[in-house]
Amino acid sequence: MFEELTILAPGLLGASIALAVKERDLARRTVIWARRPEARLKCAEQPWCDVVKATPWEAVATADFVIVCSPVDTIYPLVKRITDSLKPGAVVTDVGSTKSLISRLCHAVMPAGKHFIGSHPMAGSDKSGMEYARASLFKGQPCFVTPLVKSDPQAVDTVLRFWRDLAMEVATISPESHDEIVANISHLPHILASALCAYLASKDSNWRNFVGAGFRDTTRIASGNPALWKSIIEQNREEIVRALSEFENHLQAIKSAVTNDQPFEILNLLERAKAYRERLRPEDGDLDPPSSSGARTS
Amino acid sequence: MFEELTILAPGLLGASIALAVKERDLARRTVIWARRPEARLKCAEQPWCDVVKATPWEAVATADFVIVCSPVDTIYPLVKRITDSLKPGAVVTDVGSTKSLISRLCHAVMPAGKHFIGSHPMAGSDKSGMEYARASLFKGQPCFVTPLVKSDPQAVDTVLRFWRDLAMEVATISPESHDEIVANISHLPHILASALCAYLASKDSNWRNFVGAGFRDTTRIASGNPALWKSIIEQNREEIVRALSEFENHLQAIKSAVTNDQPFEILNLLERAKAYRERLRPEDGDLDPPSSSGARTS
Repeated sequence: MFEELTILAPGLLGASIALAVKERDLARRTVIWARRPEARLKCAEQPWCDVVKATPWEAVATADFVIVCSPVDTIYPLVKRITDSLKPGAVVTDVGSTKSLISRLCHAVMPAGKHFIGSHPMAGSDKSGMEYARASLFKGQPCFVTPLVKSDPQAVDTVLRFWRDLAMEVATISPESHDEIVANISHLPHILASALCAYLASKDSNWRNFVGAGFRDTTRIASGNPALWKSIIEQNREEIVRALSEFENHLQAIKSAVTNDQPFEILNLLERAKAYRERLRPEDGDLDPPSSSGARTS
Repeated sequence: MFEELTILAPGLLGASIALAVKERDLARRTVIWARRPEARLKCAEQPWCDVVKATPWEAVATADFVIVCSPVDTIYPLVKRITDSLKPGAVVTDVGSTKSLISRLCHAVMPAGKHFIGSHPMAGSDKSGMEYARASLFKGQPCFVTPLVKSDPQAVDTVLRFWRDLAMEVATISPESHDEIVANISHLPHILASALCAYLASKDSNWRNFVGAGFRDTTRIASGNPALWKSIIEQNREEIVRALSEFENHLQAIKSAVTNDQPFEILNLLERAKAYRERLRPEDGDLDPPSSSGARTS
């Protein structure tokens, strides 16, 4: 149990963490700092918030563990501003969707005896904001922790234990491997869903009245916050371009199979895709027989 | 109310129609034919089935309204086999996902005084099979009815009224326009979801342990029945190739914006996509604040 845990810039994720920390009794005191005065007022009223501070350096001054929950492009600037105020031995982590830049810059700016270890809990929603917070957001979801070779082993352990205490499936991995993986399994799907919506926005606007549950599922992530995602894409540019190029080659091969009427190739693709989809770890929703958000098959 | 309604080859859709027909009292008698003897035995035990017949021609002999629910590549062959057995004035429709080929072939083979009018109720699930059937599958979902210019207006009306009685949002449209629309809003998304899964199946197999709710949503339709979808793709080849080509151009433009680090273009794309997604007709699941199947944003 931490004596004091500080959350900087809580949105959906930060508020959900604070809720889960309270529910699981992981800290004696939860301290919050939010950038906007209205957000600080709102936090002060929440049962998961013990203390609100007006500045980030005040908020971290006596913290054992600090979680930076701001958008990816502001994590390093914020960490840089608090390093001097941290107490010796403090451990700082974040929840950003990209890790190479953040992990290296934040590690480099940390004074001796204070620690930054990057994290990426793969939990969230297409909705953003504290009002959608829930303690169960993390349960059974994957979480990456991305220490550097030179990271302090005890600090790494503190971060690993924290996410495990939220019932997440934690994987330790290098920041670069992390960025390659999420470019493929998260950023590429997001770009495809957005590209599909942007493409259809260029077609007959009546068509949107005809979409079924399958289209809704496929494009749900395109409702994500554009500014947040722009920053994520910018910070993981090279890996995303690589993933997009490889995916384009796959799509090209499929188009050629359809164009040339090659039923065996088409069936083979659909079967490989279904097999992959069904080998994912099961999730609750997939086990209910009459799924209300299922996709049409005929 | 029909005196007798016949459903040929019930799977998820056919059984759900039969359930809804019983619930809404739309027919005095529901007759079923299924190809496999085991399926016929199973149907005979269902509360939504009044009579089971061993052959399709026996099943349609006294029917006012016939709904063919077999896969798209078997609809025309099946319709061709029953035309002689239909009673005068009988109306036949189907639930196939493609319409140009089916509507024209089936119309052409119908004797005078008997009618085929194509339908495509956009309801279903990534699960297939009668055991997932539910009467509520259709409520508020889109349904296309695709008469030809020379179709009998009264027969068209019978089909329109039937789907409206299932609480569907019915649109009348030419078979060719239908195929263009679904190539874009249904078949293209299906191919993208399948391509994404097939692409990731070619990468490190451990990555599948890290996927979040967003990936699951985006790829859910890739669990659809490969054989059914192969036939759908084959029957709508030209429109699908056209949609894929146009989509590829869009994706190319996005890749170029990412490659060249053009934040304004990236933001603009994400905003257009989000705006399109949010102008879809609302569905129940989208209105719940804490969505359990929402996608991650950070």
